[in-house]
Amino acid sequence: MTIITGMHVLDVRAPTSRTLAGSDAVHTDPDYSVAYVVLTTDDPKLRGHGFTFTLGRGTEVVVAAMNALEHLVIDRDLDTITEAFGLWHRELTNDTQLRWLGPDKGVIHLAVAAIVNAVWDLWAKREEKPVWKVVADLSPQRIIDLIDWRYLDDALTKAEALAILEALAPSRAARVQQLRSDGYPAYITSAGWLGYSDAKVRELVAEALDAGFTRFKAKVGISIDDDLRRVRFMRELIGPERPLMVDANQVWDVPQAIEWMGHFTDLNLTWIEEPTSPDDVLGHAAIRKALAPMGVATGEHAMNKVLFKQLFQAKAIDFAQVDACRLGGLNEVLAVLLLAAKFGIPVCPHAGGLGLCEYVQHISAIDFIVVSGELDGRSCEFADHLHEHFVDPVRVVGGAYQLPQRPGYSAEMWPESLADLAYPHGNVWVAPHEC
Amino acid sequence: MTIITGMHVLDVRAPTSRTLAGSDAVHTDPDYSVAYVVLTTDDPKLRGHGFTFTLGRGTEVVVAAMNALEHLVIDRDLDTITEAFGLWHRELTNDTQLRWLGPDKGVIHLAVAAIVNAVWDLWAKREEKPVWKVVADLSPQRIIDLIDWRYLDDALTKAEALAILEALAPSRAARVQQLRSDGYPAYITSAGWLGYSDAKVRELVAEALDAGFTRFKAKVGISIDDDLRRVRFMRELIGPERPLMVDANQVWDVPQAIEWMGHFTDLNLTWIEEPTSPDDVLGHAAIRKALAPMGVATGEHAMNKVLFKQLFQAKAIDFAQVDACRLGGLNEVLAVLLLAAKFGIPVCPHAGGLGLCEYVQHISAIDFIVVSGELDGRSCEFADHLHEHFVDPVRVVGGAYQLPQRPGYSAEMWPESLADLAYPHGNVWVAPHEC
Repeated sequence: MTIITGMHVLDVRAPTSRTLAGSDAVHTDPDYSVAYVVLTTDDPKLRGHGFTFTLGRGTEVVVAAMNALEHLVIDRDLDTITEAFGLWHRELTNDTQLRWLGPDKGVIHLAVAAIVNAVWDLWAKREEKPVWKVVADLSPQRIIDLIDWRYLDDALTKAEALAILEALAPSRAARVQQLRSDGYPAYITSAGWLGYSDAKVRELVAEALDAGFTRFKAKVGISIDDDLRRVRFMRELIGPERPLMVDANQVWDVPQAIEWMGHFTDLNLTWIEEPTSPDDVLGHAAIRKALAPMGVATGEHAMNKVLFKQLFQAKAIDFAQVDACRLGGLNEVLAVLLLAAKFGIPVCPHAGGLGLCEYVQHISAIDFIVVSGELDGRSCEFADHLHEHFVDPVRVVGGAYQLPQRPGYSAEMWPESLADLAYPHGNVWVAPHEC
Repeated sequence: MTIITGMHVLDVRAPTSRTLAGSDAVHTDPDYSVAYVVLTTDDPKLRGHGFTFTLGRGTEVVVAAMNALEHLVIDRDLDTITEAFGLWHRELTNDTQLRWLGPDKGVIHLAVAAIVNAVWDLWAKREEKPVWKVVADLSPQRIIDLIDWRYLDDALTKAEALAILEALAPSRAARVQQLRSDGYPAYITSAGWLGYSDAKVRELVAEALDAGFTRFKAKVGISIDDDLRRVRFMRELIGPERPLMVDANQVWDVPQAIEWMGHFTDLNLTWIEEPTSPDDVLGHAAIRKALAPMGVATGEHAMNKVLFKQLFQAKAIDFAQVDACRLGGLNEVLAVLLLAAKFGIPVCPHAGGLGLCEYVQHISAIDFIVVSGELDGRSCEFADHLHEHFVDPVRVVGGAYQLPQRPGYSAEMWPESLADLAYPHGNVWVAPHEC
């Protein structure tokens, strides 16, 4: 038994808006932030760390939501949780009074994600394995039991999911070996922020090519002329064949997305990402139909498994960009990986921000080793920001994520970083111009 | 000019779980609550009151979200807001950092609703009119300008919406007269809570019939046998012809909803409400197709206009149950009323709880006077709880809401109620057993 004895929640913000890192058509001035949680246990050496990603203002609202969930966490036994993790996940998302605030979406779901992921970090540290390996060492039935199956069975039954997992179980070890030797393919976003000058984009693309990246993404959505110029510029820099994606961050209506992207058909784009409201399943389906063979991607704002279920059912997307803490933690991510496998849609996780890359390297590894067994059409987003704040940061070599080695979910931040970035009294906020 | 000078946010909770009022298959112990806001202005006599409804725990999270929006409210001029209300609504829902917490859903959207509705209360009080009359006195073009049109025009263009409003403008006065004389039809929910005994249901149904109610709703979703017994019992009490609805509060998967409600086909039910996840547009469409001619209703958890747009596009529902503060305030409700009119779906607002009836009487009046011009298939939910806390409570006579007369959005609570129900230090919480 390992009893969770305490839950400590922190508001942690990096002042990234000062450099326009992360800027896009909708999020013009993000301060990459996390609502961070530390779970303490009756073993003084064992703690779990987790977080949910935010953009600055409002992180305190997520902190309040995490504190509101405390009664469902404290005094629980880690073994009891992990043996029927899907049931506890339901408890966390289905509190009879708190569920009104969602259900399964927005602030309360972001808060669930941070806590759930901290439990995964705790579990993996006790097992002395990275999170991807905890999952890779579970039987298919144990993986099924990680998931709250409510609202899924018109698209995917437990039996179908079990069959998917069982078919791949005998060959898991070979895929682990493959990832150990080759890593998992990444694509890079941090060369193409909207707020960057052409000179800076040229420099960053050259650096990324030198580092072995072969897949790139640019932000669009401000003006057609400016977008065309910038995307053509990136296409020239990387050559005609390397994968190039564009991302509109929800800025368009459905007819506008179709018209705007109609100007880009000669640029061999792999996908247009978030062309409209993240909630608009039927809108994405209409856009996809109109723009084929250009792909459509979404997911960083896809709030829960029910939305992904419909995106798959409606043939609305070509790529599913799960977010490690927009969905309610790894358990719900696993549900979406299984849905995606059933529907044959590649999962290319959303990352960047503060700590998202650290999370998603585990997700892509799990997808390949346990769920889909495929790399075709898949890559995992990478942005080269703020990794220095993490105890076990991502290692991206030759354009590929290297398999995490250390125990946990790679979510733990350095105590110095937590202190410096603490909002509003940390060093970077008290003395902003010195940072 | 009227400048908003202050924003005061309160956590207000009624201990309704002690009586099981409001209990259903999912919300077994609600404490009907509100996150309440008072806007002060440079006119000491002029204040706006608004709230968003919650179920108890977590109200403090919505309070935190409302406070996070303060910078978009304070020092604003009421005239500037109301002259381009749709633009300000966009500002409130599209703050570059806060939007990550939604967008347009969950806690941050509930917070937007409270503030937006408080601005309506303020506007109406300054105009010395009830809110429904503020809208009824606006030109069609002014009503169009109340709405943030983003993400709508694949289903409803501004021009189409304007045509809907213009067609009904000349006859508005006649419908005002009709509502003044007949009121707006209500249906009653508070006779059929799951937690009530048969004896109590019998007594409440008899009272409601005596009071002139002709439409009833029962809660279902615990066990088929128990549900059948209870619904048959209510059907016997009200007779074979009066409208009877049932409400499952999201408890089923899609195939389960179809199977369960298949047992109820002989009971002449008007609708099954919330048969599954509120996010599942395609699921509702499948259920509706399977259960026709029984109607399908949803909306109290329908998070925004994009979800309603899809419910209409997918022919997923027969009745749209807009919520006055789940949607981002009256402006977004107006968008949904217009969408519903275009698609020919009757709007039957969700109400009950604490203060929701006070809000929705204005919404149904606006729908009839300004947007749809129809009563056919429409009724407005009523539950007989907690009206005594409001300065201008609903008046329901002969089963019909009477048109509100006093200036404002009927949202203002008595100072004594705000003090008694203040959480956690109000009288009802400090001395719970005396209440």
